[in-house]
Formats: sequence, C-alpha cells, structure tokens
Amino acid sequence: MINRRIKDILHSGEAEEKLTACGWVRTKRELKGFAFIEVNDGSSLAGLQVVLDENTLDYEAVLKKLNTGASVEVTGVLVPSQGKGQRIELKAQTIKVYGEADPETYPLQKKRHSFEFLRTIGHLRNRTNSLGAVLRVRNACATAIHQFFQEREFLWVHTPIITASDCEGAGELFNVTNLDLKNVPLTDKKEVDYSKDFFAKPTYLTVSGQLEAEVMAMSFSNVYTFGPTFRAENSNTSRHLAEFWMVEPEMAFCDLNGDMDLAEEFLKYIFQYVLKHCSEDMEFFNLRIDKTVLETANNIIDNKFERVTYTEAIKLLEKAKVKFEYPVSWGLDLQSEHERYLCEKLFKKPTIVTDYPTEIKAFYMRLNDDEKTVAAMDILAPKIGEIIGGSQREERLDVLERRVKAQGLEPEDLWWYMDLRRYGTVPHAGFGLGFERLVQFMTGMTNIRDVIPFPRTPQSAEF
Amino acid sequence: MINRRIKDILHSGEAEEKLTACGWVRTKRELKGFAFIEVNDGSSLAGLQVVLDENTLDYEAVLKKLNTGASVEVTGVLVPSQGKGQRIELKAQTIKVYGEADPETYPLQKKRHSFEFLRTIGHLRNRTNSLGAVLRVRNACATAIHQFFQEREFLWVHTPIITASDCEGAGELFNVTNLDLKNVPLTDKKEVDYSKDFFAKPTYLTVSGQLEAEVMAMSFSNVYTFGPTFRAENSNTSRHLAEFWMVEPEMAFCDLNGDMDLAEEFLKYIFQYVLKHCSEDMEFFNLRIDKTVLETANNIIDNKFERVTYTEAIKLLEKAKVKFEYPVSWGLDLQSEHERYLCEKLFKKPTIVTDYPTEIKAFYMRLNDDEKTVAAMDILAPKIGEIIGGSQREERLDVLERRVKAQGLEPEDLWWYMDLRRYGTVPHAGFGLGFERLVQFMTGMTNIRDVIPFPRTPQSAEF
Repeated sequence: MINRRIKDILHSGEAEEKLTACGWVRTKRELKGFAFIEVNDGSSLAGLQVVLDENTLDYEAVLKKLNTGASVEVTGVLVPSQGKGQRIELKAQTIKVYGEADPETYPLQKKRHSFEFLRTIGHLRNRTNSLGAVLRVRNACATAIHQFFQEREFLWVHTPIITASDCEGAGELFNVTNLDLKNVPLTDKKEVDYSKDFFAKPTYLTVSGQLEAEVMAMSFSNVYTFGPTFRAENSNTSRHLAEFWMVEPEMAFCDLNGDMDLAEEFLKYIFQYVLKHCSEDMEFFNLRIDKTVLETANNIIDNKFERVTYTEAIKLLEKAKVKFEYPVSWGLDLQSEHERYLCEKLFKKPTIVTDYPTEIKAFYMRLNDDEKTVAAMDILAPKIGEIIGGSQREERLDVLERRVKAQGLEPEDLWWYMDLRRYGTVPHAGFGLGFERLVQFMTGMTNIRDVIPFPRTPQSAEF
Repeated sequence: MINRRIKDILHSGEAEEKLTACGWVRTKRELKGFAFIEVNDGSSLAGLQVVLDENTLDYEAVLKKLNTGASVEVTGVLVPSQGKGQRIELKAQTIKVYGEADPETYPLQKKRHSFEFLRTIGHLRNRTNSLGAVLRVRNACATAIHQFFQEREFLWVHTPIITASDCEGAGELFNVTNLDLKNVPLTDKKEVDYSKDFFAKPTYLTVSGQLEAEVMAMSFSNVYTFGPTFRAENSNTSRHLAEFWMVEPEMAFCDLNGDMDLAEEFLKYIFQYVLKHCSEDMEFFNLRIDKTVLETANNIIDNKFERVTYTEAIKLLEKAKVKFEYPVSWGLDLQSEHERYLCEKLFKKPTIVTDYPTEIKAFYMRLNDDEKTVAAMDILAPKIGEIIGGSQREERLDVLERRVKAQGLEPEDLWWYMDLRRYGTVPHAGFGLGFERLVQFMTGMTNIRDVIPFPRTPQSAEF
C-alpha cells in the first residue's frame, strides 16, 4: 500500500496522473450522475475532495457505502478543481472501502457535537475538526520544545515516575503499590507493612521531576525533563488534570536573569513554531474557538517581556484604580485578578514578576540578600495568566538546611539533594511549564480535558 | 554569567583571546610553579585542560581548593597546547571556585569504581566518564526517535499512564490508588470499595500504550508513543526494570510488510544518528565497555535485514548441527539461543521472523489465512537478540471478538477498541521498542540499571 498523506497532496497542489490516497469519509454530496466525498486522513484540517462518477468502478455499489466515517483507499487522477474551496480534486477511478460506518449508529454525524459529548467518545472524537486540530498543535508544541532544547545542547533526561520522595510538597499524591488492597499486610503496630510491597517502602507518582533534574544538571550543566506528572487533588475544574505533562529545564552556572532570558526565548520559540507549522489549525481556532488566540500568540512573540519585582508589583496594585476581590498586601500571594491586571491592563504584554516573599514559595528557591524574598519568577501572559514558574535554586548548604527544617522537613530525608550542595555546588536555576496549559492557551480551548487524548480526572479514567 | 560549553570550545579548536568556561574539576596535576586541571561540564567526554601558574589570580589559595569534584568558573586565554592529548588549553587568568568537594568524603575519586557502587550514589554517578557517555547517547537516541517520526509526519501522542484497562495482559500491574492503605474501605461483600477511590474504579500503571495508539492512528493515520511503561514483575535481572520507556508507532493503511520496512529504516536511522552525533562516546564504549559495539551498530546499518517466517525458521533450526538447550518444534516459542543462532550464525545480520503461531501471540495480532499463524514479526539482531516486536493488528470485528473471547476476555470490556473495527476499520500495524534495551545494546552496558538515570527495581526506588 503506497499512499500519500493528504496534507502533502494538497500542499503540492499540482495535477498528477495517478495517485492513491487513504482516509476516512467526512461528508458525501450526491448529485445527478456524480458525487463528491471529502476524505480526511488526519494529516491536516482540510480534506481531499474526491469526485466519483459513472467512470468510477462499481459507482452505484460503492457510493452506498461511502457514509461519514467509512475508511477508503482512492486511486485516480489529480486534477484542478472546478468548484470553490479547493484548488485540486481527485477524480476517482477505483475506490476500495475498507470499513463501513453505519449511519444509524456511528456517533459522529455531520452536525456539531458538544465537547462534553465528545469526551464520552474519546476513541472517536479525534476525527472531528476541533480535536484533530488540537492534537496536531499539541504535537507541534511538543516538537518545538524538544527542538528548542536540543538546538541549545540541553540533554533530555527521564526523571522517575515512581518516587519514594514525598517532600516536594506540590500537592496530594497517588500511592503506587502491588500490595493486595483487599488484604493489606500490617505490622504489629498496625502500620502498613511496606517491607512486603514491591519497593519495600511507600512509593508515589511523581509531582515534579525538578529535584532529580537538579541532580542531572550537576553533571551535564543543561538538561530538561518532559514527561508525565500527577496530582491526586479532587479538583473538578476546567484547568485541572490528575495526569499531565510537564517541561522542566534546569541549568547549572545560571542565575535568575539567565533563567528569565531562557524562559522568554523559549515561549517565543514555541509560539512561533506553532504559528509556522500549524497555520491552518491556528486560523481554525481563531475563527471557531477563540477570536483572540492569534493576537495572544503575537503578543508573546512581538514583545520584550516586562520584568517587575513582587514588591514593585504590590505597589502598582495598591495604586491601581480598580476594585479587586482579593486583598493586596505585601506577603500575600498574587491572585489571578492581580496577575491579569498587571499584564493585561498595566503592561499589556507578558510580565515576569520576581523575588516573591520567602513564606509563600518553596524551600528550594534561593534566599535573596534581604532574607525576606527568594529568587523566584512567574511569567504572566495576557489572556492566559501564569504560564511559567521558576527560580534560582538555593545552592548554599547551610541556608538550604535551614529552609528545609523551617518547612518541617528533615534534611536527612533529602541527603542526596543536600549532597549536591556539599560537593561542587554551583548557582543553578530552572523553571516549569505545564504542557496542557500551554496547549490550552495556544488553542483557546476552554476545558483542559480537550487538549489531552485521554484525560484523567476525579471519577474518570476512561479508555 | 556568559560561558561557553566545553564541547563547543574543543570543537572549534581555535585560539581565543578571552573566554570563560564552567564545569567540575576531574583531575589536578601539580608541577613546580604551575598546575593542570581538567574541567568537565558534561557536554562531552573530553574535558578542557586548564593551566594555572603564578599569573593566575591567587594561584596558591585557589590551587588548594581545586580538588576532584569542585565547581569552577575559569576565565583566560585559549592557546594551542604544548602537551599531548589535546589541541588547545585554557591559560587561566582568574578561577572562581563555586563549590569545593572535600577529598576526604567526596565519593568519586580518580580511581575506577564498580557500577554496583556507582548505583548507590546515583546522584553523583553521572559525573563519571561511563555514565556521562551513557546519558549523552540516551539523549541522542531519544532525539533520533523523535526526528525520525517527525520527518515522516507521525504525530507524537501521549497515551495515558494511569489506566483502568487490565486486559493487555503483558505482565503484572502496579495499583494506583489514593485510598488509605492502612484502612482500605470494603463493601458488604468484603471487596475493595473502589467507589471511594480517586477514579471510582481500580486503576493501574500502563504496561503499553498500544491500544490507545491504535485509537489515535484511526484518526491521524500515523502516530507514535514515547513514554514510560511499567511492570510489577519481581525480576531482579540485568535486563528488567519496573519502570522503563517504550516507543510504539502505529500506522493506519499499513500491513506487515510496511511495518517491517518502517522498523528496519527506523533502526538504521537511530544507529546512524548516534554514531554521527556521539562518535566520541561510542568509541569510548567500544574501547572500555564492549569491543563489539561499533561492529554491532554497523551490522545493523549496512545490511538489508533477512526476512524469514517462523515456520521456515523452525525448519532451519531443526536442520542445524547445534545442540540447543531448549527443544525446537513448531508451536513452541523461540528461545534466545535459537534467535541468536539464526541471526548470528546462520544469516550473520539482523533477521525478521514473521508469522508466529497464534497460540503464542497476543489477541490483537491479525490472524493469517491459514488460521494457524498471526501477522507478527520480531526483529533479532546479532549480539542483541530481540530488539523490536510488532504486528499487523486484527481489523476484522468478528475475528477480533473470537480471539478476545478465546483469551478469556470480554469484548464489552474493550468496547472502544471494538468500536474502532465497527466504524471505518482499516488494516493497520505497529511495533514496540524498549528504549532502555536499545540504549543498552547501543552502548554495550551489561546492566540495564546503568542506562536509565534513576532505575526502579524490586526493593529499590532510590532518589
């Protein structure tokens, strides 16, 4: 079976003597003595218009089978199209129908379906225009991420999914076990007898690869993770998933400024890449899903990001002639409304807020000389809100130990993380990007469950 | 901090007036009035030779701190080297020591360490030549994989890690739960009350993304997965991990021949890519780890793979003038000794064995017309053994239902998988490659725990 992808056929746009294309029927229009079918193979939003007529082998018999969803292999001649909407069309000589799709039961008929309904048919929903476009953009984002880092000689490192470390503190954890849940072995003290479990200790699904990425950066200087992470939070919102992918670069010999420079370059690169490689899909989103997605993308690409300290940001918010729902005061975290005011109303471009109060940030962030703030940064983007969070890491052993203890943790439990500060410690920094959030912002999709092929959420682990 | 990666400095090989490099001290040689230190930043096997002398700021004081493992930033002049072993060296003007490494306690001194010992210091072991080279080759393999598929317009799809499906049957499963293990809720019938668990049903860590990849291929034609998979098998061997990465392409409108063509092209591509991009590391493995790794790689690159059916292979094995430990007979699976005989002794090149007996293969493999064999294929490589396993998938609903039932499974439990055959079914095929096995074969490392940054094995989930 030698067939050409429809994207390439449409792209070349040249008439051809003989050609075979494969795909699924999207629509059929029957006219007197001939018919048009649109065939889509998922390579692009646009399908290939196929024309059948009495010269097509078994015209009548084949036509009956060509309902929405049927799979076909079409061989014919590629000719300039007479009709509107496409430059070329395939005049079919033979059509082979691999699999029919009964119009009575096939759930994806031509009418529009709600995204809620489509989630119940996650095995078929990617055959729609919207989900197809989302998954192509998702792939382009992922490819851009790898390309960005590989061009800069960062190593992709695979940090573990199963972890015995529960001290990252980023949220609730899933247990991983092969104990018999119906009959969990207990010790004399009525504690779970983990010595009988696979790893002989409690283990969880990772919430972040950062600590392990720091290990790798202390050998290879520049690394990044790109893999699944997990939260067992019972959040049934349009922005939360229990399983999602995260990107976490980590750079040795790098401070917060270098971290911000990289993050800015990184975001611009991805948005540019997707606009270039998925222009048709992005125009679809701009037309059908959210009329601001192109504007939002260009705002990120075209502007030098504003940089402002948390302390300055608080002053600006206090001066703002806006009534906020949540209080503004030094020491309190910024709420979404504050973030949006800063980047949408005040600066009108992506804004990096730096140097947050120590108390509201994680133990591994580097303590500034004022001892009240840490070298953290959050990137806020118009329409999007927080898209990246990062920091310079605390590289001084004594300060780190103090900070770990202040959070009620034991430095010994993180002995290997401490060792990185004991042997050849260096200034280093990194950031994290939630991959599905990125795809959501890129496409304007309102529900995060629609930008991942198989969403995992409370009460739901279908397919 | 603007510093250049040591790989690039060595690669350009030109004298330069002023340059800053960062990294960790590997060795120090003191002579009268001057000293050499080798600095490595993980970007390449080779380090940068740095020369200090009385012209270096604070020469005596700095020299004392420059022990193995210390982190430094060196600024100086890049000059042609007088000594052997390097073309250029950096004459240091200033050296900033970021972090010392106490020679009394730093575990990585100059002597060689066993891989067993290195596993106990997984947070530091990547600073050794061997592990450094492994991780660079691992990154190159991963990059080659993405590049191969992206060039061919395959979409990278993220199949779920947490799954409610336990019917792939590839091995023992890890449970994922957020129930309190000390106090698991039971129903009246003394079964686990999963309605109280996060997903309201039993969930596991995935053993393969194939079934979900088939879903995606039925929308996008050509897709691939590349992500972590899991086995809760209590196998404490040098070839097993509880957590490992797998690559699984899936192609619609593709039969077993197309599958084999792609797999052959794919393997050649990856080996070629790594030889080109990691030549120094590959020479290191050939010299220090396994003297056949380059030969093995070239055998894969240079030969057209042999293709032989299982039935023919059995005949050839029966004729062989070799005493095998395990019996050879139609219907029995091939053992490692048989596979190695075929590709190493008989064909002396990579060999694809096809059309295995139905009974020894999975339910989703396409039944051949003889009804006794399925359209499966395994790729065997000299010195390596089985490296890829794949098949054309059963696309006929009635045959699939029969095969599912024959394995004691319920077609209803796989309703969505069955639906793919009900609506627009097409011939399709795919294969799987264990990523760590690939890296192991590529590098000649004997233990699979040494080709993944943080190995997960029975009783062990460190770092």
